Amino acid sequence: MKRSFIREILEHTDAHTISFAGGLPDVGLFPRQALQVAAQKALCTPEALQYSTSTGYAPLKALIAQQYCDKGFATTADEILITSGSQQGLDIIARYHRGTGMTLESPSYLGALNIFTLNNISTYSVALGEDGIDLEAFKKSINHTALTYLIPDFQNPSGTCYTASHRRDLATVLQDSDTLLIEDAPYSEVYFDQPYPSISQLLPRQSYHLGSFSKVLAPALRIGWIRADSSLLQPLIAYKEAMDLHTSSITQRIVYEYLLDTEGYQTHLATLRTHYQEKMNHFADLLNKYLPNFHYARPKGGMFIYGKLEGIDTMKLVRECIEHGVVFVPGCEFDGAFDEIRFNYTHSTFEEIKRGLKRIALVLSLR
Amino acid sequence: MKRSFIREILEHTDAHTISFAGGLPDVGLFPRQALQVAAQKALCTPEALQYSTSTGYAPLKALIAQQYCDKGFATTADEILITSGSQQGLDIIARYHRGTGMTLESPSYLGALNIFTLNNISTYSVALGEDGIDLEAFKKSINHTALTYLIPDFQNPSGTCYTASHRRDLATVLQDSDTLLIEDAPYSEVYFDQPYPSISQLLPRQSYHLGSFSKVLAPALRIGWIRADSSLLQPLIAYKEAMDLHTSSITQRIVYEYLLDTEGYQTHLATLRTHYQEKMNHFADLLNKYLPNFHYARPKGGMFIYGKLEGIDTMKLVRECIEHGVVFVPGCEFDGAFDEIRFNYTHSTFEEIKRGLKRIALVLSLR
Repeated sequence: MKRSFIREILEHTDAHTISFAGGLPDVGLFPRQALQVAAQKALCTPEALQYSTSTGYAPLKALIAQQYCDKGFATTADEILITSGSQQGLDIIARYHRGTGMTLESPSYLGALNIFTLNNISTYSVALGEDGIDLEAFKKSINHTALTYLIPDFQNPSGTCYTASHRRDLATVLQDSDTLLIEDAPYSEVYFDQPYPSISQLLPRQSYHLGSFSKVLAPALRIGWIRADSSLLQPLIAYKEAMDLHTSSITQRIVYEYLLDTEGYQTHLATLRTHYQEKMNHFADLLNKYLPNFHYARPKGGMFIYGKLEGIDTMKLVRECIEHGVVFVPGCEFDGAFDEIRFNYTHSTFEEIKRGLKRIALVLSLR
Repeated sequence: MKRSFIREILEHTDAHTISFAGGLPDVGLFPRQALQVAAQKALCTPEALQYSTSTGYAPLKALIAQQYCDKGFATTADEILITSGSQQGLDIIARYHRGTGMTLESPSYLGALNIFTLNNISTYSVALGEDGIDLEAFKKSINHTALTYLIPDFQNPSGTCYTASHRRDLATVLQDSDTLLIEDAPYSEVYFDQPYPSISQLLPRQSYHLGSFSKVLAPALRIGWIRADSSLLQPLIAYKEAMDLHTSSITQRIVYEYLLDTEGYQTHLATLRTHYQEKMNHFADLLNKYLPNFHYARPKGGMFIYGKLEGIDTMKLVRECIEHGVVFVPGCEFDGAFDEIRFNYTHSTFEEIKRGLKRIALVLSLR
């Protein structure tokens, strides 16, 4: 199995390299002190350190279920399975459905593609348009696949956000099929103007909805979850148990203690949205200035700007850029076109964004 | 896939049930306050909350490597892969060797058997004697299997500890074969009188050695590791990455900060060993008193007493016992005989051990 370009880069670039590669949040936005307080509370009882149930810490599951209910998506704690990041959630689902066929977007999330390969799943790519996946091609593809994998909110890598009407159309199409939807939604809370309703909400008994605290709290917690109807969730529990017994109940309890301050969490989310929108606009303004031939649309949320540097082999380009202390991910890594690029705009500081984009412009001018 | 009897029991018994079932440590022995202090230190830097490398937190890997070196088993940080409990370590190795054949002990660890089934591994059981696995049968079996799975230290479920000479004999046999050894060693530090050298130490390039902090610090941390030669470890990293990106760097850093107080850790281990030996002797004394027909040997470490209640169907017995508020695991769950039982003696208090064993005696007397 091949390692991820992004994660290899994470391990091999030095501290001076400006990275637009990984999907890393801004370290300055982690609610570190509040999590430190939460950790003290979480570790007040010896039971917090003991083995725990495979499905997850019950009070945390109840809080997550409540968050769904607050959005009008009726959910009980029994419909939540806590996972070690939503990456593991994907693996559990794919492992249970091992060897089947899957319809997905092109381009799509690299970590998911790896998991599908590992689980011997045959993937059928359907092009992603401005409003979401191509509906006609999608209809044809799902006739042959038991699973569908979509990232409707500020997709990784494309940044695309499905329109509300496209979501409804997809739900209608799926309802008439035997396909189960896997909706990966790690960025759903990272919207700039407005939230979008999930597709799963329209298909509660035919979907796995994956959530994560990695983008909104901190990735190091490794806390994600699967929301699904009990009949779909039950068979997954044996897999979760076999894979790592259960997710750390220390980090689960830290998240739980943190979330108890509902107002604090909402304030944190509001700050994060404003800050990321400012960064995105800063990045886009400088792209227009330093890389005027880069064509893209400003995203409405999430962490990525995806676009095209017409005619330029971006894999070659990134190898030259590494020498000049700046990295990004070439589109081909996501099965995108050879001249496409994914930029992450959340990780670097405003000043680093400027320096990094100037370095890429320099590399292009030296050719 | 079947769920584990033990974990289902963990989820369904109430607070009044006395459990000799799960392999749970004594909550009173968790170094809770020291871990609380370690958590404060771990969360002092925002970088602790960011995505991290798939192989694990480098300073923790270095400390674990040093612990091997201190035992005379030369190891570098590059030969350590941090996993989400050693359960995940087993899964990573089994997944990489998917579909192959494996020689293992009978009885063996249930969680491992599940993982091997999940990864389509054909298992060949060899009987476990007093000194370890039957050497002659083992020699024949490994001719047909690419892997061997052993738990030489205070085995789960049998409590067996391989003698030093048996370990050397096994290493010699393995050296002449093409079989890779998976040595699962979660109880290696939980010895009562003396530690035992690992078999892997004699086969550094032909073995995966699995370690864990679950039994000696706290299971909720979910921190384990694989120690292997770089050539064996490298291909596993892509699997680890695909499965959950990386293990929580918060809990990794908590363990690291805790371990920096070397003397404190050694004192903790000494206390744990003494306390568990006292509990084991208490349990054994009461077994002799209340269940005189139960045949077993006192273990030299670990967490379990395994034995035989001649002619009694222990699966039937445990179902009756549940009604009377006490549980254990019948041997058949581990592919052991129908009249065998595994008792965990570490989890319950001294007083609960007495009450629990009296309840079992009562159930037997009512038959």
